[in-house]
Amino acid sequence: MVGWPDRRWLDLVGTEQPIVQAPMAGAGGVELCIAAIEGGALGSLPCGMLSPEQVRAQVAEVRAGTDRPFNLNFFCHRMPDGVGDAAWRELLRPYYEEFGVQPSNGGAMRLPFDAAMAEVVEEVRPAVVSFHFGLPEPSLLDRVKATGAIVIGNATTVEEALWLDERGVHAVIAQGFEAGGHSGRFLGSDPAEALGLFALVPQAADAVRIPVIAAGGIGDARGIAAAFTLGASGVEIGTAYLHCPEAGISDAHRRKLREGRTVFTNLLSGGLARGVHGRLIDDLGPIRPEAPRYPLASAALAPIRAAAEKRCEFGFGPMWAGQAAPLGQALPAAELTRQLGADALAILGRAG
Amino acid sequence: MVGWPDRRWLDLVGTEQPIVQAPMAGAGGVELCIAAIEGGALGSLPCGMLSPEQVRAQVAEVRAGTDRPFNLNFFCHRMPDGVGDAAWRELLRPYYEEFGVQPSNGGAMRLPFDAAMAEVVEEVRPAVVSFHFGLPEPSLLDRVKATGAIVIGNATTVEEALWLDERGVHAVIAQGFEAGGHSGRFLGSDPAEALGLFALVPQAADAVRIPVIAAGGIGDARGIAAAFTLGASGVEIGTAYLHCPEAGISDAHRRKLREGRTVFTNLLSGGLARGVHGRLIDDLGPIRPEAPRYPLASAALAPIRAAAEKRCEFGFGPMWAGQAAPLGQALPAAELTRQLGADALAILGRAG
Repeated sequence: MVGWPDRRWLDLVGTEQPIVQAPMAGAGGVELCIAAIEGGALGSLPCGMLSPEQVRAQVAEVRAGTDRPFNLNFFCHRMPDGVGDAAWRELLRPYYEEFGVQPSNGGAMRLPFDAAMAEVVEEVRPAVVSFHFGLPEPSLLDRVKATGAIVIGNATTVEEALWLDERGVHAVIAQGFEAGGHSGRFLGSDPAEALGLFALVPQAADAVRIPVIAAGGIGDARGIAAAFTLGASGVEIGTAYLHCPEAGISDAHRRKLREGRTVFTNLLSGGLARGVHGRLIDDLGPIRPEAPRYPLASAALAPIRAAAEKRCEFGFGPMWAGQAAPLGQALPAAELTRQLGADALAILGRAG
Repeated sequence: MVGWPDRRWLDLVGTEQPIVQAPMAGAGGVELCIAAIEGGALGSLPCGMLSPEQVRAQVAEVRAGTDRPFNLNFFCHRMPDGVGDAAWRELLRPYYEEFGVQPSNGGAMRLPFDAAMAEVVEEVRPAVVSFHFGLPEPSLLDRVKATGAIVIGNATTVEEALWLDERGVHAVIAQGFEAGGHSGRFLGSDPAEALGLFALVPQAADAVRIPVIAAGGIGDARGIAAAFTLGASGVEIGTAYLHCPEAGISDAHRRKLREGRTVFTNLLSGGLARGVHGRLIDDLGPIRPEAPRYPLASAALAPIRAAAEKRCEFGFGPMWAGQAAPLGQALPAAELTRQLGADALAILGRAG
């Protein structure tokens, strides 16, 4: 018996390794995507904070570096209406004063997938499109499907996995509580019910007919092998790639990955996302009711963050990381990808 | 290659299956312990709510049913001093009125391991003694070790696993966030940093020299096989045994296992413990600052719980369950144990 024990995702996507390099807005761009692809993974471009023009430009760059498939990732949140941020700005006032900046709405905002982005997808025709926080409205989803793209949705519960399967996605990410970055929860909203990957993967795999891609807490080859053992057909790996030289993160962020102390915070975007500790979290506590809803909280923070980062203080911007962060190795992404795949096959007793 | 890929725990404890039947105070007693042992597991007696006399009596019952090894489990919390529960009783006042009972301190209280229990251990000499919430003071621990018992500690973080290893326990349970019942966290106290089993097992296995027993979110044979793949030498299984006829739980509790909606609550004991929803949690929210520290919250609840259960309302007592609850099967415990072991070996490709 040689090779991956479940080839459903591999046969669908046509990559060599059943590894999806997770889209990580702000931390991984073209360079990381190409390097992961070179190692045999499905590379991803995080597009949630890009303009249509920027997506076109990055796709061109990826295609100049590889002719293999890649994934464009988009967010599908609804922008909140009429949310004020007066209490949030008041809470942040000591930082405006400390850093000598004025409250303003600066910085790139996470925007939901829309008609302009559907046009980009129709134009550049990526092999794979993945969505976070549910799916776009049916007419937009139909336009994406009509391009022939493989569509991936993100589920944090069995209910969400079933919802996505019913709407015709081709594969579903089972995102465990351990995952770094934003929890994609979109049905129901009780964060106290977040599921660990160990419980989520087998329940999701039993519930849906499509391949399940396990995400969150997979930091090395043991995790990949264990995910397959639980019923996954693929894995999505994010934090492990943050150790790679191709990840565009601060040295402070990189060092904190080794400590492994992560929490869910709503301070940096308004949505629940897992990351390492930094000054804002340590000062205010990780969860504050004053933070306006996703994605609005980042706006009032932007001038503070910009000023703080000039002083090499990175605790006012996202330093996302999952719970397996300390397991990562500082290897080039292509080499890391190949090694993870080979080691996982060896652990599964299926090496060639 | 036949048999378990890591025999460190099996060779230490001498059971046929690398499965520890989790001690579950109030839900599993002598009958479940004997049945799990019959299936090849290490059976456990939860002793945290028993008197020394009750422990002696239950040990005698287990020994009348089997001559194989069993585990006595104790708590090692410190009883809080000078904690008032006026705010808690005030919060519960509507229930005292609804059920027509007087506030009183009734019910069995969870008590920490002490000299009287050390004497019981010296007398009955169980093969294994496990501790939750850290370890007893060194002189008591030394007395337990001097009996020749294998000592197991419970860790929810790598730091706790190292602390236990340094104090000479023979094996460590890595308890994931997914686990039903009380989280054993004893160093540090930030529940926001709770680790999922997927992230905890490999990090704990890398950190300590002793065998790691994975617990929490393991609901079927896939979970057992995955735990070994992540670096565990054994598994502890609790919730899956609640489906068995030998578990002494209400029908309401049994039905809710299938729904799989669990939360951490501090309402039922004062400590954080995972269980299914019930009326108290739904009315008050799962976490309330008014609940006095572990284990005191249960006292003021006791008369309400007793009156409510007479009306077949079970939402005022513990209905612990882990996140993999829906994966369980309603088989007799001995049969379940044998089947889990055989299926896990088959998944690992090591069946005989």
